[in-house]
Amino acid sequence: MHKKPAKRKQARNSDEAIHLGPLAGWLGFNLRMAQAAAFQSFARRSSEIGVQPGRFATLTLIAANPGITQTALSRANSRDKSTLTPLITDLVRRGLVRRTRDRKDRRTYRLSLTAAGQRLLRRLNECARQHERDLDRVVGRDRTLFLKLLRKLAAEMG
Amino acid sequence: MHKKPAKRKQARNSDEAIHLGPLAGWLGFNLRMAQAAAFQSFARRSSEIGVQPGRFATLTLIAANPGITQTALSRANSRDKSTLTPLITDLVRRGLVRRTRDRKDRRTYRLSLTAAGQRLLRRLNECARQHERDLDRVVGRDRTLFLKLLRKLAAEMG
Repeated sequence: MHKKPAKRKQARNSDEAIHLGPLAGWLGFNLRMAQAAAFQSFARRSSEIGVQPGRFATLTLIAANPGITQTALSRANSRDKSTLTPLITDLVRRGLVRRTRDRKDRRTYRLSLTAAGQRLLRRLNECARQHERDLDRVVGRDRTLFLKLLRKLAAEMG
Repeated sequence: MHKKPAKRKQARNSDEAIHLGPLAGWLGFNLRMAQAAAFQSFARRSSEIGVQPGRFATLTLIAANPGITQTALSRANSRDKSTLTPLITDLVRRGLVRRTRDRKDRRTYRLSLTAAGQRLLRRLNECARQHERDLDRVVGRDRTLFLKLLRKLAAEMG
């Protein structure tokens, strides 16, 4: 075995030592990086059952609020309508979500889970519980304070 | 003035009181909501100078690492290549970023800021500093611990 591949890899790594500049100490950047890492970790778990991670919160919110409107869901989920609408259309196409017109206001659609949606959500919940245990392990004994600060940011920055 | 519009608004609001279900206490969901709120707040500031907020970190990383490759930037920025490539193409088209082929490895592109990119970054830095002051105000005296936990999540969950 000659050594070239290993040497090449080393060279590439040192080539890629990145300076974060002023970003390193900024809350905004570190919040994004933490969220991206958590998202990727959950994505690995949920991809095992063939579901994109963004669907979990959407399905959970519909399950907890049967008949929720798309507008209310968009607000609760912090997604704008332009990203939520194709997502809902896809969930309806897969037979996981039912979309029905409101009886009084025909312009309003109401969402609920189908039986298949409920089954999938139970499996996703198992992934999410494991994911939460991973997050809890990293955050450790400061969990209560950390959660309080995240909620405060969501409430006061939005 | 009759009262109908107000009544209607009230009905709609109570209609939209959302149950978060199990999501309410989960770190993963609250991390996403905090990040979404912070992102929207920065987007409002940076839109005043006509720049999408996702561009700030990219421009800052290129400024701090002149000649950085797209692969290294993708990793530092926690963006996959499929979202980074169109973003870079757009920054090049706007004359903010210069993309040149590596002299030795012609398949590798190296990125640096143009003079216009440097000028825009200075204006974005002013938005970002104001944004950081907003975040600092919400997080308060627990900033050091909060930052430590975000970094720990980025390092250990990714």
